[in-house]
Amino acid sequence: MNSAATIVPADSLLKFSAACFERLGVSALDARITAENLIFANLRGVDSHGVIRLKIYTDRLRAGGFKANLHPRIVSEEASSALLDAGHGLGQVAGVEAMRLAIGKAQATGVAVVGVKNSNHFGAAAFYAIQAVERGMIGFAATNAGASMAPTGGREGRLGNNPVGIAVPAGKYPPLVLDMATGAVAWGKIFLAQQKHEKIPASWALDKHGVPTDDPNAAADHGLIQPFGGYKGYGLSLFIDILTGVLVGGGFSTRVKSLYQKLESPSDVAQTFAAIKIDSFLSRAEFCRRVEEIIDLMHSCPRAPGSDRIYVPGEIEHETEQRRKAEGIPINATLREELAGLAQDLHVLSPF
Amino acid sequence: MNSAATIVPADSLLKFSAACFERLGVSALDARITAENLIFANLRGVDSHGVIRLKIYTDRLRAGGFKANLHPRIVSEEASSALLDAGHGLGQVAGVEAMRLAIGKAQATGVAVVGVKNSNHFGAAAFYAIQAVERGMIGFAATNAGASMAPTGGREGRLGNNPVGIAVPAGKYPPLVLDMATGAVAWGKIFLAQQKHEKIPASWALDKHGVPTDDPNAAADHGLIQPFGGYKGYGLSLFIDILTGVLVGGGFSTRVKSLYQKLESPSDVAQTFAAIKIDSFLSRAEFCRRVEEIIDLMHSCPRAPGSDRIYVPGEIEHETEQRRKAEGIPINATLREELAGLAQDLHVLSPF
Repeated sequence: MNSAATIVPADSLLKFSAACFERLGVSALDARITAENLIFANLRGVDSHGVIRLKIYTDRLRAGGFKANLHPRIVSEEASSALLDAGHGLGQVAGVEAMRLAIGKAQATGVAVVGVKNSNHFGAAAFYAIQAVERGMIGFAATNAGASMAPTGGREGRLGNNPVGIAVPAGKYPPLVLDMATGAVAWGKIFLAQQKHEKIPASWALDKHGVPTDDPNAAADHGLIQPFGGYKGYGLSLFIDILTGVLVGGGFSTRVKSLYQKLESPSDVAQTFAAIKIDSFLSRAEFCRRVEEIIDLMHSCPRAPGSDRIYVPGEIEHETEQRRKAEGIPINATLREELAGLAQDLHVLSPF
Repeated sequence: MNSAATIVPADSLLKFSAACFERLGVSALDARITAENLIFANLRGVDSHGVIRLKIYTDRLRAGGFKANLHPRIVSEEASSALLDAGHGLGQVAGVEAMRLAIGKAQATGVAVVGVKNSNHFGAAAFYAIQAVERGMIGFAATNAGASMAPTGGREGRLGNNPVGIAVPAGKYPPLVLDMATGAVAWGKIFLAQQKHEKIPASWALDKHGVPTDDPNAAADHGLIQPFGGYKGYGLSLFIDILTGVLVGGGFSTRVKSLYQKLESPSDVAQTFAAIKIDSFLSRAEFCRRVEEIIDLMHSCPRAPGSDRIYVPGEIEHETEQRRKAEGIPINATLREELAGLAQDLHVLSPF
């Protein structure tokens, strides 16, 4: 943790974020949902998806790229599927509604898939997947994103760092939660290597000519992040774009705009959500017993040299969440200044 | 291609494989389905899943680990889900039946998931995913496998090199097909590096102490394949095991036996299949137009130095299939001898 970090209770940040959204015309309920998504990420240590996004969200709400009070509309549906049009409203509002719909349909039929077009940045994917866990189901959430990765062999952005979130009930253990982007690394880690004058693994990034580089400066100079695991990550990113943007009739590939481009225009992001009802297959109690067993099998695996502990997906984030719920969320000096400015600007009570 | 390879027409290998299965008590239809799955892999250049498996399949049929005439039985079902018990019959027979069921249910409701327990090695996952494409749907097939990979930080096998196959209709182009295991590499590539006295990337394997190694001999000496892309590949492999073995009430983790262990005993493999009906979301024509467009966007991406061409998933396999359908399938000397021995042993007409 940065020594200059201020520790802020989660609830203060939640109320502050929601108040900012309300000031910009978002309903109290929608403001709360969106704020909860950001604070969820901060609590779990995924600060890249937390209140660091508050300023750009408010900027887009003001500029018109996010519509303040547009609710998703059902375009078509069947017993186990639905297509929603988010009307360029908040991605979080559409996401929570889409997952709610998927859960309801899966309750009736066993499994359901709900897609959303004309959506926006929806924050951490795990947030929606966990909604299903709260209802005793397995949940999935995926989104496309502005094109920032090249297909294997290419050197221009054609696919987003498209993430998928999967969450599974785990009985006595916290839910298993995998929330992963299809890029090898976040840009933040490359910027950090620049600051520390360190080399980066050649599998992380391409330079501006499309050549893998171990120099973080070459990567940062109009380079691209590589898909994780080479062509397999490329394939996964492409399939996420097909299951989201292509299938739902939304933006895909280069048609999706980044959160930070053209604040007044729609981003044309698309998302897809799915839920599987566990008791269509076996009782939830039996399922949870089996998940506990597979977790135990991972934890008890003999360790490799230098390994202190074996984790299962979501475990580190859960422990961070327990700690930050008790102790608060660290906000560094730069972000603190940004949020304080926002408070002043929007005439909202500062969380500090 | 090995200079000692014999080129055999696909149809000869198909008839030969089916005849071998029939000799061991498999019905003509089931023998044909299983043989088609093996030849499908050979045609597409995935020789690791082709007739190289014929001998072990016949060995297991004789020893009892594969039951010759057991058909999958529906244990439970809902409108969009079903659980099948394969009764330790042929994995291919259960797989085709499960995917058929998933397609039928998805036709009625939009999407469906069908799981299979007490199954066996089912060959190439793409084979089943493509069944859905033939019906205008997106298909998924996943299986678990004998524990051969460690969780990140571990040094003993706790998860299979669990693959997933995804297939998508692509209009004027051949279907997009991603069929990937969650391991960094196939053992075959490590054996090849041994023969050539070459180093391997440190991300491929662990030595017997659980330490990443660039020495293929150290990897082959009781080492393990690493998951692809580090902890992300570990997470995907774990979730495939949960969506297959754990969810369907089948074997998972160390409970799943390898194809080559205990030929007389069940392998306790589990599989899960899913289908998404495209026209629940948008017309198939519109979907295909959009898939063609995203394929064009990949193909037309400016190329990195040293890259001759950009492929989409399944493209290389499709081209190999076209060629091998016309020219035949190359069978190397070792495999030729094995198949000729099998012909003699089972009193089946040799394909050579």
